[in-house]
Amino acid sequence: MRMKKFINEPTNLVGELLEGMVLAFPDKVQLSGRNIVARAWPKESGKVRLVTLGGSGHEPGLSGFVGEGMLDYSVAGGIFAAPGAPRCLEGIRSACAEGASALLIVLNHAGDVLSGNIAMEMALREGLKIKMIITHEDIAGGPNLEDRRGLVGFFPVYKVAGAAAEQGASLDACLEIAERMERNMRSLAVAVNTATHPSTGQPIFELGDDEMEIGMGQHGEAGTGRMKLKSADETAEIMLNMLLSDLQVATGEEILVLINGAGATTLMELLIVFRRVAQVLTAKKIKLIRSAVGEFITTQEQAGFQMLIARMDPELIELWDAPADAPFFVKR
Amino acid sequence: MRMKKFINEPTNLVGELLEGMVLAFPDKVQLSGRNIVARAWPKESGKVRLVTLGGSGHEPGLSGFVGEGMLDYSVAGGIFAAPGAPRCLEGIRSACAEGASALLIVLNHAGDVLSGNIAMEMALREGLKIKMIITHEDIAGGPNLEDRRGLVGFFPVYKVAGAAAEQGASLDACLEIAERMERNMRSLAVAVNTATHPSTGQPIFELGDDEMEIGMGQHGEAGTGRMKLKSADETAEIMLNMLLSDLQVATGEEILVLINGAGATTLMELLIVFRRVAQVLTAKKIKLIRSAVGEFITTQEQAGFQMLIARMDPELIELWDAPADAPFFVKR
Repeated sequence: MRMKKFINEPTNLVGELLEGMVLAFPDKVQLSGRNIVARAWPKESGKVRLVTLGGSGHEPGLSGFVGEGMLDYSVAGGIFAAPGAPRCLEGIRSACAEGASALLIVLNHAGDVLSGNIAMEMALREGLKIKMIITHEDIAGGPNLEDRRGLVGFFPVYKVAGAAAEQGASLDACLEIAERMERNMRSLAVAVNTATHPSTGQPIFELGDDEMEIGMGQHGEAGTGRMKLKSADETAEIMLNMLLSDLQVATGEEILVLINGAGATTLMELLIVFRRVAQVLTAKKIKLIRSAVGEFITTQEQAGFQMLIARMDPELIELWDAPADAPFFVKR
Repeated sequence: MRMKKFINEPTNLVGELLEGMVLAFPDKVQLSGRNIVARAWPKESGKVRLVTLGGSGHEPGLSGFVGEGMLDYSVAGGIFAAPGAPRCLEGIRSACAEGASALLIVLNHAGDVLSGNIAMEMALREGLKIKMIITHEDIAGGPNLEDRRGLVGFFPVYKVAGAAAEQGASLDACLEIAERMERNMRSLAVAVNTATHPSTGQPIFELGDDEMEIGMGQHGEAGTGRMKLKSADETAEIMLNMLLSDLQVATGEEILVLINGAGATTLMELLIVFRRVAQVLTAKKIKLIRSAVGEFITTQEQAGFQMLIARMDPELIELWDAPADAPFFVKR
């Protein structure tokens, strides 16, 4: 089947979508340099800036979360491609202008980490006050942390570190909060239908008509379990149990649950999955203290979802509850 | 191709998805009666209540907009089906409890209007203080208002009437605001790929591999123009020009633009479409005073979008800007 997307020149996708975003949310974001999204109203001086980097085609992630209480700068790469070190350095320089400190948040994908590492090295050599955190919470990667990809876990990290920065926390304190959030979260994805790559029109992966795959990465990277399609309740239970076991959540603990739609999976389905997660947690006497359901990072019109759980403490909860005002996430 | 949705029993879809919604947003919504979504914290007495009704399977619409500054009650029907007069009456009775006044907002679809009309008649006979507005802003229906369907236009109506009610406006004042918003808006949809009905697994409509259809309704109702697939910019211009002409927008006027994704069409595409709309408006010297881009009402994993324009005045802008706090729309 021919790709049926509302696009123009496939080579201009990223520039056009970011232009659309700043035109649609002029009170929240603006373009700053080549495909770098910045806040419309910069933060007060003295406060720590948050910078991120990553490929495009995953909207609203990552640039849709630039705004008060969240990110200060998002360096957007090409479709499913890291932005490269020079542009990351450009973003870091903007964040660290006039002596400001900044925290760089990178999702664990080879190209992103490479870009981030090189940019960090150059930035430190320039004397900029920047530290970095890599998110790698996808348990499908196996026991080694370096093999675990960064999925939707960037979102709680942006949220709590962004709130801390907004409240005036130091760079070390923001990093500590981000690391604590990162260490206490786990995610897992499931896919049932592929998407088409918007630049090439090619399907991202192949899957049988009656199959689903647990553990698939954000770009169709192979997962841990290809199996026959299961019901919402069965899928929710399989994934939740894998996550609870990996994070070693005990009875009585308080967790956050986030369900992220991959693109074509409906909000109806995400809510039905969430319902089962909540029921199972109640049965296990684990307290569902906070939750989020919606699309935070997508892979075009892929069908499937990501489930994330995170162990919360009172400080993380307070930061999660703090106000935020980005194009695609607002909290009062 | 087999339907690949995360569901359980197709007969339980609506109950399960609403249960999921109230479990995910317990601080915002609760269930009140059979598949009626109400605020978690009812409005102060003396303020007008907003009630709506409509089919399910279109999430986040309609129940996702129950909350502060928006709806008080949403009576959810079956998948793509009106809820029926008795349950609508139940919703109206809750809204009008203890002498409160309420405004019922109904999208112009035969079943919904029938349910609404009968429920209104019964409610008035009971002496309840209720008035009704029907939204019918889809210009694909032709010149007669009764033939124009209610698409995403419910959203600005909920928003401005909800804000007025929250500020303590009388029932007549809320109705006047809702009617002014309704009279000054126009919408149009385009579809490129069908969805499957989640209860039956059947495709909702058929469309050629290289075709798109402008004017298609929310349930696959035939539109005005089936044509070869066009670029984002071409599609945006065709639809915008039809809307501007129907609303008779003149140079110098201030309008709101809303782009609503149908389900599988990516946010990337919606932003690219929005970009072109903003460019064309600038060229025409029409002022883009407010905007919204995202998913407000979907038709499962259908691909396409709705475009809405609305002529705004200072009072409508102030009400649009007022705070809101529903599960799927928050404004600070």
